[in-house]
Amino acid sequence: MRYELYYWTGIQGRGEFVRLALEDAGADYVDVARERGDDAMAPYLQGDRAGARPFAPPFLKAGRTVVAQTALILAWLAPRLGLVPEGAAARLQAQQLQLTISDMVAEVHDTHHPVAASLYYEDQREAARQRAADFRRLRLPKFLGYFEDVLAAGDGLHALAGHSYVDLSLFQLMSGLHYAFPRAMRRLRPELPHLHALASRVAERPRIAAYLASPRRLAFNESGIFRHYPELDATR
Amino acid sequence: MRYELYYWTGIQGRGEFVRLALEDAGADYVDVARERGDDAMAPYLQGDRAGARPFAPPFLKAGRTVVAQTALILAWLAPRLGLVPEGAAARLQAQQLQLTISDMVAEVHDTHHPVAASLYYEDQREAARQRAADFRRLRLPKFLGYFEDVLAAGDGLHALAGHSYVDLSLFQLMSGLHYAFPRAMRRLRPELPHLHALASRVAERPRIAAYLASPRRLAFNESGIFRHYPELDATR
Repeated sequence: MRYELYYWTGIQGRGEFVRLALEDAGADYVDVARERGDDAMAPYLQGDRAGARPFAPPFLKAGRTVVAQTALILAWLAPRLGLVPEGAAARLQAQQLQLTISDMVAEVHDTHHPVAASLYYEDQREAARQRAADFRRLRLPKFLGYFEDVLAAGDGLHALAGHSYVDLSLFQLMSGLHYAFPRAMRRLRPELPHLHALASRVAERPRIAAYLASPRRLAFNESGIFRHYPELDATR
Repeated sequence: MRYELYYWTGIQGRGEFVRLALEDAGADYVDVARERGDDAMAPYLQGDRAGARPFAPPFLKAGRTVVAQTALILAWLAPRLGLVPEGAAARLQAQQLQLTISDMVAEVHDTHHPVAASLYYEDQREAARQRAADFRRLRLPKFLGYFEDVLAAGDGLHALAGHSYVDLSLFQLMSGLHYAFPRAMRRLRPELPHLHALASRVAERPRIAAYLASPRRLAFNESGIFRHYPELDATR
């Protein structure tokens, strides 16, 4: 099965969570917009293709199936790629954790775009400063503390009982947060030993290490979800 | 099976999407916090109970299963309650639509709380005014136009091929938006004939009509997600 991933070119964005799963599994996939441009997504987004119409990228095409929404794409892909333990309970828990990661990612986005995605960051800088301060003070420790507890309550090594796409997504979440908020993340580090160890282990998985060293892995940048604006990070 | 729904007392909130599914199906359920207070949720949120730990309400307990995240609760419940058509494709599409509803609900929340959920509305009024204006101008027509197109592309009556929890959630979404943004919704009305017809049909379903007339249906209010602040609505 050749998978077609559709996501905006130029950024890691939400597509990166799907990309990491495909890469970790060594799946045969095409990153369609990177090969043919963002316009290749338009027919799907406009409802001119069969299958469930996506509201927004990322979406994945596999044979006649078209599936959108990051967490749902992963839930659909994971059993096919061997990226989730067997059993309904594990898969349910995986989805629950992934949806909570999605919620956090949306909040990260809004730290630099609290007023409107349609405006430039520069036009909402003061609100961003306030939102980012609240995020660093309350939301960042709450979300990461939750994931840390989930790891500690399990085998200490994985979000579920064994390797899964959730671990890959937690790696991506930690990577993005370190890029965007290096000072805040440094301060939180002593409270998140399991998350840090997990992120290191994931980065060392052979296929992930190869991917991260490849040109397919774009650098984080200030067009993506995780952006580094020093004024939005902690002061020390 | 007796279902236990856990959600904050005093508001409809995200719990209402689950409540409508349970009510429409005539399911045997307990609205736990309304009977025993919000503190009844604490042991689950603190990880002191078996099963997947919820990050936040709503969550549902059914026998030994505990499941959180509104869209996932519904996806799990729906086959058991007869609230989704048969078949993997339909269930995947249902989840995709429900997750898009969840995304819109989060954006509705942020129209009145763009800076921080931890601050009062009154302390973020100016940013709220800007975010709500952007929401009314771009996001509201984009999201609702998408759902309108989904209805029009199907049988015109349902989001999927037959009644489902997605229809119930679209009813709730339309109800909340009418409460929060009556003027903006009046202006959009001519463009959303299928959504308006669907909302009317759902409201007339016998169990839903009975529920809406019961004290179990709380009124929308300014502690919930859908809040009516006239200054955040269109000017005419």
